[in-house]
Amino acid sequence: MADVNRVVLAYSGGLDTSVILKWLEQTYGCEVVTFTADLGQGEELEPARQKALKAGVKPEHIFIEDVREEFVKDYVFPMMRANALYEGLYLLGTSIARPLIAKRQIEIAHQVGADAVSHGATGKGNDQVRFELGYYGLDPDIRVIAPWREWDLTSRTRLIAFAEEHGIDIPRDKRGEAPFSTDANLLHTSSEGKVLEDPWEETPDYVYSRTNDPESAPDTPEYITVEFEGGDAVGVNGEPLSPAALLTKLNDYGREHGIGRLDLVENRFVGMKSRGMYETPGGTILLAAHRGIEQLTLDRGAAHLKDELMPRYAELIYNGFWFSPEREMLQAAIDHSQTHVAGTVRLKLYKGRADVVGRKTDRRFNLYSQEVVTFEEDKGRYDQRDAAGFIRLNALRLRLLGERNRDA
Amino acid sequence: MADVNRVVLAYSGGLDTSVILKWLEQTYGCEVVTFTADLGQGEELEPARQKALKAGVKPEHIFIEDVREEFVKDYVFPMMRANALYEGLYLLGTSIARPLIAKRQIEIAHQVGADAVSHGATGKGNDQVRFELGYYGLDPDIRVIAPWREWDLTSRTRLIAFAEEHGIDIPRDKRGEAPFSTDANLLHTSSEGKVLEDPWEETPDYVYSRTNDPESAPDTPEYITVEFEGGDAVGVNGEPLSPAALLTKLNDYGREHGIGRLDLVENRFVGMKSRGMYETPGGTILLAAHRGIEQLTLDRGAAHLKDELMPRYAELIYNGFWFSPEREMLQAAIDHSQTHVAGTVRLKLYKGRADVVGRKTDRRFNLYSQEVVTFEEDKGRYDQRDAAGFIRLNALRLRLLGERNRDA
Amino acid sequence: MADVNRVVLAYSGGLDTSVILKWLEQTYGCEVVTFTADLGQGEELEPARQKALKAGVKPEHIFIEDVREEFVKDYVFPMMRANALYEGLYLLGTSIARPLIAKRQIEIAHQVGADAVSHGATGKGNDQVRFELGYYGLDPDIRVIAPWREWDLTSRTRLIAFAEEHGIDIPRDKRGEAPFSTDANLLHTSSEGKVLEDPWEETPDYVYSRTNDPESAPDTPEYITVEFEGGDAVGVNGEPLSPAALLTKLNDYGREHGIGRLDLVENRFVGMKSRGMYETPGGTILLAAHRGIEQLTLDRGAAHLKDELMPRYAELIYNGFWFSPEREMLQAAIDHSQTHVAGTVRLKLYKGRADVVGRKTDRRFNLYSQEVVTFEEDKGRYDQRDAAGFIRLNALRLRLLGERNRDA
Amino acid sequence: MADVNRVVLAYSGGLDTSVILKWLEQTYGCEVVTFTADLGQGEELEPARQKALKAGVKPEHIFIEDVREEFVKDYVFPMMRANALYEGLYLLGTSIARPLIAKRQIEIAHQVGADAVSHGATGKGNDQVRFELGYYGLDPDIRVIAPWREWDLTSRTRLIAFAEEHGIDIPRDKRGEAPFSTDANLLHTSSEGKVLEDPWEETPDYVYSRTNDPESAPDTPEYITVEFEGGDAVGVNGEPLSPAALLTKLNDYGREHGIGRLDLVENRFVGMKSRGMYETPGGTILLAAHRGIEQLTLDRGAAHLKDELMPRYAELIYNGFWFSPEREMLQAAIDHSQTHVAGTVRLKLYKGRADVVGRKTDRRFNLYSQEVVTFEEDKGRYDQRDAAGFIRLNALRLRLLGERNRDA
Repeated sequence: MADVNRVVLAYSGGLDTSVILKWLEQTYGCEVVTFTADLGQGEELEPARQKALKAGVKPEHIFIEDVREEFVKDYVFPMMRANALYEGLYLLGTSIARPLIAKRQIEIAHQVGADAVSHGATGKGNDQVRFELGYYGLDPDIRVIAPWREWDLTSRTRLIAFAEEHGIDIPRDKRGEAPFSTDANLLHTSSEGKVLEDPWEETPDYVYSRTNDPESAPDTPEYITVEFEGGDAVGVNGEPLSPAALLTKLNDYGREHGIGRLDLVENRFVGMKSRGMYETPGGTILLAAHRGIEQLTLDRGAAHLKDELMPRYAELIYNGFWFSPEREMLQAAIDHSQTHVAGTVRLKLYKGRADVVGRKTDRRFNLYSQEVVTFEEDKGRYDQRDAAGFIRLNALRLRLLGERNRDA
Repeated sequence: MADVNRVVLAYSGGLDTSVILKWLEQTYGCEVVTFTADLGQGEELEPARQKALKAGVKPEHIFIEDVREEFVKDYVFPMMRANALYEGLYLLGTSIARPLIAKRQIEIAHQVGADAVSHGATGKGNDQVRFELGYYGLDPDIRVIAPWREWDLTSRTRLIAFAEEHGIDIPRDKRGEAPFSTDANLLHTSSEGKVLEDPWEETPDYVYSRTNDPESAPDTPEYITVEFEGGDAVGVNGEPLSPAALLTKLNDYGREHGIGRLDLVENRFVGMKSRGMYETPGGTILLAAHRGIEQLTLDRGAAHLKDELMPRYAELIYNGFWFSPEREMLQAAIDHSQTHVAGTVRLKLYKGRADVVGRKTDRRFNLYSQEVVTFEEDKGRYDQRDAAGFIRLNALRLRLLGERNRDA
Repeated sequence: MADVNRVVLAYSGGLDTSVILKWLEQTYGCEVVTFTADLGQGEELEPARQKALKAGVKPEHIFIEDVREEFVKDYVFPMMRANALYEGLYLLGTSIARPLIAKRQIEIAHQVGADAVSHGATGKGNDQVRFELGYYGLDPDIRVIAPWREWDLTSRTRLIAFAEEHGIDIPRDKRGEAPFSTDANLLHTSSEGKVLEDPWEETPDYVYSRTNDPESAPDTPEYITVEFEGGDAVGVNGEPLSPAALLTKLNDYGREHGIGRLDLVENRFVGMKSRGMYETPGGTILLAAHRGIEQLTLDRGAAHLKDELMPRYAELIYNGFWFSPEREMLQAAIDHSQTHVAGTVRLKLYKGRADVVGRKTDRRFNLYSQEVVTFEEDKGRYDQRDAAGFIRLNALRLRLLGERNRDA
Repeated sequence: MADVNRVVLAYSGGLDTSVILKWLEQTYGCEVVTFTADLGQGEELEPARQKALKAGVKPEHIFIEDVREEFVKDYVFPMMRANALYEGLYLLGTSIARPLIAKRQIEIAHQVGADAVSHGATGKGNDQVRFELGYYGLDPDIRVIAPWREWDLTSRTRLIAFAEEHGIDIPRDKRGEAPFSTDANLLHTSSEGKVLEDPWEETPDYVYSRTNDPESAPDTPEYITVEFEGGDAVGVNGEPLSPAALLTKLNDYGREHGIGRLDLVENRFVGMKSRGMYETPGGTILLAAHRGIEQLTLDRGAAHLKDELMPRYAELIYNGFWFSPEREMLQAAIDHSQTHVAGTVRLKLYKGRADVVGRKTDRRFNLYSQEVVTFEEDKGRYDQRDAAGFIRLNALRLRLLGERNRDA
C-alpha cells in the first residue's frame, strides 16, 4: 500500500484523538493536519490548538472552525423539515453532525494537499460508517485511516499506557473510572457504555449533562412561541434569530424544563443493538413546534407522503448516507412541501414536556378553515350530502368483495 | 327507493341518537332495533334500555352488550402491535372502535331480519365513513341511513325543538351552552368543536375528563412494569390481566399522572382539517411500553419495515378501512413480526410522561447482546476489521458517483 | 343554485360533446365556449370549428389549439422519467392528457369570464375525476357541470334521438352498431366497452387502430437509437427532435412493428374493475429506452427509491391527482435523479417487441465501470476481501436471530 | 483461527468447484463433503458423483439430490405471488436458488457433523452474499470458507494450471476461450462476462441456450391456458401439473417461441453495475399469467399495496435476505392476498411475446362485474350521481389549496 504523506485528522483534543495523532505519526511517518470543529459541543477549542502545537502539528496545519451556523442551517434544519425520528424516537443528533465534519476534512485535505483522512470512531459503531461514506463520496480516491480498526490498543489500559508513554494529557476521570462514550453538539449529547450496557438499569442521573431532571425543573409551566418561515424556525417569542442562535435559545428552555431525554435501545447499521441515552433539549421542542405549524399549513397528501417517507429518510441519515442521491431525492420532495409552512406555534414547557397548545398563521399559508369544519352553520361551504357519494364509491370495491364472500 | 322495514341503530341513549330513533320511525315508518355497546366509555347502559323502551322499542329489539374484552383484544391490541400513530401523534382511539360497532350492527341485522342500519355520525366527519365502509363490506346489500345527511334538523336549535316536541330527555347542558362533540371508550376520550375550533386557543382545562392536569399530578414519580407476550401486553406489575382489565389498569395510572393528552389539528378523510383534543392515558403508556420491548426483541429489518408500513396502516384505520384486504395484509405482516416480542418493560410515570427506563427479556426472545456491543473486551464476538470491508462496499457506488462528479 | 352564464366545454366535435353543447344551452340557458385541443389524436380539428359555429357558438368563443409540444414536454416526459406504469402494465395514456385539458379550460374560463366548465366524461369512469380535480385545484370556486351525471339521456337510443331532434350530425357508425368508447392522443389510443366487456374474449383485430398486428409486421428486425439528455429523449437515430416530433417518430416505428398493444383488466378509482385495450406504440419504446439509459447512469440508491415510489406516482396520475402537492413532491424527487441520465440506447424492434440491446454514454454520466466489474484482472479497483466484512456485518443481526432460534 | 475438520461444499462437478474441492483439502487438511443439487439446470448429476469419488470424497459424503419440486413450490412460486421483478425487469432466477442450496448445506453439515461450509462464488458478485447470509442465518456459528476471496488463484490461467497439476478434468472450452460465467436452474439461465462486459455490444446469439431466437421461432402464434389456485399455477391447458412439471412445461413453450430473453445492466448488492443476459422462458409466461388472473380476482387495495411492496421484496431476494424477518413479513402480507387468486388465463405465444388475451374465473373468486362496469343499462348497480360527491370530497383539500394560492 502506498505511503501516507499527510493526513487530516478529525481532532477534538481529547484523549483518544490525541493518542491517534501520535499513533499516526509513528505508524505512518506522516504529517498530521488537525481539524477541530465548533459544533456547539460546549467546550473551549483553544486548548485543542495548544495540544496540537505541543504534539508537533505545524501552526498552519491546525484548523479550528466555528461551523455552528452551517451545522444548524444546512444539516439540522433540513432534517427537521422531515420530522425525522430514527426508530420512532431518536432525533439523530450524532448522525447529522458527521457529514459536515467529513466534508470539511476533505476540503482541508484538498487545500493542504493531504492524501489521507482519519477519525477516532471505533470499529463497532455507526460513526465510522458516517465519516467514511462521507469521505469516499466526496473524494473517491482518498485514503482512509481508521486507527481503532488497525491498532493494537485494544483496551483502555493499553490506550492510557500509550498516552502516558508519549506525554499525552490524561483527563482525571480517565485515570479513575472509565468514562461513558459521549458525543455532543448543538443538537444533542449522547452517552453509551458502562452501566448503560444493561438495558434494564435505569440511566443514573449523573449521566445527564444537558438537561435538568424533570423532577427538579420549575413547578410552573412556561409558554413560548416559535416562528416559522419556509419550513424553518426563524424566531422565538417573536425575536428573529439565526439558526444556531435559535437552537441555542431553545436548548436553554429545554435544559431548564428537563426536555428531550431519551433512553433507547437502537439498531446500529453494523448489525447489533446498543443502548444509549440522549439529551436533545432544543431539538425536541423544535420537532414538536414544526409538526404543530405543519398541521395548519401542510396539505394532507403532502403530510401523509412525508410521514411515509420519513422512516427511510431517517434511516439514511442514521446509516451515514447523507451525501447520497437517495437522501437528496427525498430532501427534494420534502423541501418542495415546505414553502408554505409558516406561522407561529405556542408551546407549553413543563417538567420534561413540550406541548403544542396553539398555532396560527395568515391566509397566505393557512389551510385550516373554521368555516368548513364548524359544527355550526357553514354557509354552504360543505354539502353533507356529498359524503354519501364519497362513501358509496369508496365502498364499491368492498361491496364487490362482500358479494364474493357471500357467494363463496 | 324500497321501503325500510326494520333498522338497527347504533344507539347511545343520548340526545342525538334519541332524536334519530324517533326520526327514523317517523320518516321511514319502520321498526327500530337499538344496539348499545359498552366499549368502556364509562357510562351506565341501563338508562339507554329504559329510554329505548320508553321510545317504544320492543324489549327483544334492545341489544346492550359489553364488548370491552373483544374491543381491546381484537382491535386495540392488533393496532398497538403496529405502533400506530396517525399523523405522527394520534392513537386512533375513535377510529378503532367504529369497525366493532359496525360489525355487531350487521350481525344483529341478520339476526333480527333488519334491512337497514343507521348511525348518528354527521356528514362532515370521519365516523360516517368508518361505520358505513364497515357496513357495506360486511353486507354489500344493506341499506344505510345516515340521518345527519338527510334530515332538515340543520341546527342544534331545531334538533332540541324536535326533541321537546317528542318528549325526548334533553340533558341539562344541552339546553344551556351547547356541549363539545365527544367520543369515549376504553382507549380514549375525544373532544371537538366550540372553542377548540380556534387552533390558537389553548384547550381549556374543563375539556379534559380522563386525566389529571399534569400540574396537579403527584410530585413523586411512580414506577410500573408491563409484561408482554407475543406482542401483546399481558400483565402489569407482574399481575396477569385480561386485555380490558389491563387497559383499565393502565388508564388508572395514566389518569393519576396526567398522561396521554394531545392537542391536534388533523386531516380528515373527507378533506378538511379539524382540531381535536384527545386523552389516551393507558394507550399512551402501552405504546411506549410496546416500543420498549420491541427494542430488545425485534430484529432491525422487521422493525424498520414496520416503521415504514405504519403510516399507511394508521391511515387505513383512520379512514375506516379496517375491514379491507390491504389492512389485513399489513396486519399479517405486522403480526408475523410479533411472535418473539415478549418480556418486561419498566416505566416511570411523572407529570404527563411515561418514559421507558428499563427492559428485559429472556434468551428465548432476546436479540440484544451485551457481549457483542460492549466497549470492553468482547471475546471475539465482533471483529472490528470486518467494518472496513462493510464500509468499502457500501461506499463503492458512492465512489463511482464521486469519480463521475470529479470527471464531469 | 346560482345561474350559469357562460361555460367552457371540452369539445371534440363528436356526437357526445355536440349533444352536450346543445343540452347545456337548453338546460342552463347559458353561453357555451368550446375548447378543442390537438393532443395528437390524429383528427382534423377544423370540422370541430364548423360544428361549433353551426351550433351557434360565437367565433371568438371557439378555442382550437395545438398543444402537442406542451403535452409531451410537460406531461408525458415527466411521467416517463418516473418509468410510470399503472398496475404494472399501463402507460397512463388517457390519464396524463386530462390535466392539460383541464388547465386550459380554466385559463380560458378566466379569459372569457366564464363561471363554469363542462366535460363529456361519464359518471362511471376515471376521466370525470381527472377533469374535475384539475378544475377545482386550479379554480376552487369554479362551477362544474357533468352532463352524464345530470341528464336523463341514460341510453344511447335517447342520446341519438336528442341528436336527431336537434340536427346534430350522427356519425354513421353510431347509427349502426354502437362504437367502442375510445380515447386518443399522441401517446396512446384506448378502447373500452362492447365485446371487450367480457375479459375472456380476445380483443378482435378491428379494435386496433394505431399498430400493425405483430403477425403482419415486418419479418426483419429494425434497429434504432434513442438519445437522452437530463432524463428526456432528445433524438432518434442521432437526429435531434422536439418532444412531440420525437414521440411521433417513435409512434411510426411502433406502428410498423406492432409495438405497444396491451389487453388489461384494471381497477378504476371509482371502485370497479374494467377491461380495456391500449395501444401505446412510441411510449412503449420510450419507456424501454429510458430504463436502458438509466441502467448506465442512475445510481442504485436513486434507482431503487424511484422503483419504490413509482406505483404511488402512477396511482396519483391515474386517479387524477396531477395537480396535487404529493405528485409534485414525487416529481421533485424523481427529477432530482435525472440530471445525469444521458446517453444513447440502441433498440431492436421486431414483431411487437422493443428490446434494449445496447446502451452507451460518456464519462460525465457513466456509472458503469468495466474495470471494476470485470472477471479479469481489475488492477486493484476492487478488493475481494472487502466482501468478507461486508457479508459478516450484514449477517450479524441474522446470526443473533439464529442464536435466538437455536436457544429457544 | 480454529482448524476445519469437515466442510460441506456446494459442488457442481465443474472446473471451479473441482479445483475448490482439492484446494480445501490441501489448504485446510479437512474432509470435504459434496452437495450437488438438481435444480433443473439440465445437466446429468452422476458425473459429479464420479468426479467426487475420484477426488477422494467418501461415498457416504456425496450428497446428490433432486430438489426441483421443492425449488419451484417453496421458492419460485412464493416469489411469483409477489410479481417480483428486480429493477423493473429481472425475474431473479439466480437469486432465488441460492437460499435453498444454503439451507441444504447447513442441514447436511449438521447431519454429518461438519464444522464449515463452502461455495464457489467469487468475491465480486451477489451469490457469495446470498449463500453466506443463508448459512449464517440458519447456523450462526458455522464456519464459512469462500475460496475465491482467500486463494491466490487470481487468474483463469493459474486456476487451470492448478487443475492440470492435480489431475482435474478441464472442459475443452475452458482450455480454449474462457467461457461466460453462467448459472442455470429450472427458472432461468444467466450469462455474464466477456463480450457482455461492454453494454453497448448486442448479446451474440451463441450466448443463448434456453430459447429460440424470436426470428426463428414459429410464424404462427400458439395459444395456451394456465390454471391457478390460491395464487399458484396448478395446470397448463387444463392438465394438472406439479410445480416443477408445470414450470418445465412452460419452459418448453417459452423455448419454442423465444420468450424470456433479457439484456440488463443491473446494480449488484456489492456496489457495482454489471451487465447480464438472462433467459427465463417459463417464468416470463408465468408472471404474465399471474398478473392476468390477479386482474380478475384481486382487490384494488391489495393489488396496489402489493405493487408498492414488490420492489423492496425483490431487492431483499436479490440481496440474499430470503431467510430474514422482513422478507417473511412481506411474504405473509402477499400470501394473505392470494387466497382467492384462482381461475384460468389464456395467453398468446408469438415470437418472444407472451400476451394475456383472456382470463376467467368463477363467482367464488371473481371481483369483475360486467353489470357494474357496463356502458349499457346497469339495473341500478351503480348510481352515477354518487360520483359527484366522491369527486367533491376528494377535491376539498385541493380547493382549500387553490383558495390559498389565489389569496397569496
